[in-house]
Amino acid sequence: MGFYVTVLGSGASMPTGHRCCSAQVVNIEGFKILIDAGEGVQNQIRRAHVKMQSIDTILISHLHGDHFFGLPGLISSMHLCGRTQPLDIYAPKGLDDVFEAIFRVSNTELNFQLNIHTITPDVSQPILANAKCRISSFPIYHSIETYGFLIEEQKKTSLSLKRDVCKKYNLAADDIARIKQGDDLVLPEGTIVPNANLTQQPKSPRKYAYCCDTSYNENLVPIIKGVDLLCFDTTFDSKNEELALSKGHGTTVQAATLAKQAEVSQLLLTHFSARFKDITPLVEEAQAIFPNTVAATDLSVIELQTL
Amino acid sequence: MGFYVTVLGSGASMPTGHRCCSAQVVNIEGFKILIDAGEGVQNQIRRAHVKMQSIDTILISHLHGDHFFGLPGLISSMHLCGRTQPLDIYAPKGLDDVFEAIFRVSNTELNFQLNIHTITPDVSQPILANAKCRISSFPIYHSIETYGFLIEEQKKTSLSLKRDVCKKYNLAADDIARIKQGDDLVLPEGTIVPNANLTQQPKSPRKYAYCCDTSYNENLVPIIKGVDLLCFDTTFDSKNEELALSKGHGTTVQAATLAKQAEVSQLLLTHFSARFKDITPLVEEAQAIFPNTVAATDLSVIELQTL
Repeated sequence: MGFYVTVLGSGASMPTGHRCCSAQVVNIEGFKILIDAGEGVQNQIRRAHVKMQSIDTILISHLHGDHFFGLPGLISSMHLCGRTQPLDIYAPKGLDDVFEAIFRVSNTELNFQLNIHTITPDVSQPILANAKCRISSFPIYHSIETYGFLIEEQKKTSLSLKRDVCKKYNLAADDIARIKQGDDLVLPEGTIVPNANLTQQPKSPRKYAYCCDTSYNENLVPIIKGVDLLCFDTTFDSKNEELALSKGHGTTVQAATLAKQAEVSQLLLTHFSARFKDITPLVEEAQAIFPNTVAATDLSVIELQTL
Repeated sequence: MGFYVTVLGSGASMPTGHRCCSAQVVNIEGFKILIDAGEGVQNQIRRAHVKMQSIDTILISHLHGDHFFGLPGLISSMHLCGRTQPLDIYAPKGLDDVFEAIFRVSNTELNFQLNIHTITPDVSQPILANAKCRISSFPIYHSIETYGFLIEEQKKTSLSLKRDVCKKYNLAADDIARIKQGDDLVLPEGTIVPNANLTQQPKSPRKYAYCCDTSYNENLVPIIKGVDLLCFDTTFDSKNEELALSKGHGTTVQAATLAKQAEVSQLLLTHFSARFKDITPLVEEAQAIFPNTVAATDLSVIELQTL
């Protein structure tokens, strides 16, 4: 099944003609997580052909406007379009105050239950777990309280069928269930097909780490170790390392260095400053250190590959 | 000098692919007034080639999200782009609470003075007056506290030159000033040119009335009487009159009827429900009653003609 990251906004601070502010939809086997919600996110959701009402949960990394100013509009539109399914938002302390003020002045009473959960600043904190994924937050290094997110596919407990082999036997649903639990197959004439011929170990669960906005910090290495995809703050190129640090942002070289240190499979650069009209040199800077690097562009989709 | 209305958003409730939420820039001889600020207004300002920092004042009709959710992003971008000029916002009670919460949670201290003035529900209330215009607010008829705005060009106190005649005399600045005050012109050889040959009465000051969101109500007639341009809530067509009334909105026929009753020069329909993919029939409904009707489209510009 699929595990996709759809970039809705890849720019920093304010929208430009080419990049909206930070937002992504992570689709993990149909469970849809919106991470951050910069202004205009509802438009971007539509442009990405994601059904607005299919968003299952929302994670907000921090409360700078470029990461949440699209949230009131999205919530309002969900309400106006008849949502009844409850919605959980996980965000740093304070988002509930903003919504309290907005709902009060606009005299709005939502049709659905909006649950705003406050993330607490533990080193790493489980946020949510269901049949498809586990999500945890961890503090990252920005100018205000900010969190990264680790989204892990749930480990499959049953064996995977070798489909090419199994299809020879015209298996019933009961047979399949038993084989996935480790049983051998007994054919009608009594022949035994050993389980090892029919199954393989389940594939490794995939992992996605989102770290934006943040400075480079080696404390992140053990948390994001070995993830399949790391999305990291790349507001600046390497020439602006001091500026990046002063503003709590990362650079190309820092993102790539961290990706290498943490032995991730792929690096996704995002949150580009509007000063960079052409980001090719930034991607090249990162690729010189960590070759499997791609740059986020609005509406691009990255699939996490099954190993 | 010019008096222009640039439509930034002409849709209702939520943005669509073709219409952003409510926002307009009124440019009256270079003084720029933003009326309403739906989500994405900063993008629309850029697309309309209006300089964001040149906005002099902001009027917010009411605190439904589709009329102000773009304001936090716009204010943030003004701040990030180095604005130092103070900015006045006129809005119903409560907007200051929203900004207080947003600035607090995002730890933001603006580089410029943001003055949020609360409009009080008088029948008609002066808001602002300067050398170029006078602005007043008046209550309109929506589901929450909502105001219309009347923007009037300042009356010229001096006479207007008949430029074709005057250019024959190679006038000095002093001569021009005296002639504009009513003096005759004395030529070097002693001939007197009567003032009436050189001047005409100043043109009538132009007036723009913005009424959105609102139901039809005849109480509006004396307030908007004789304006050059009336912008009126046209969320629905005439078939949906009951629905419009129940939601505090107007219809095509109601907008046109009011324009006729108030003897305005031109009618601008706006705030179209997303259900109307083609608004041609709506414009035709209004034109059947009030022929000089135009429909707002995003980024369209309407000039108020000097009579």
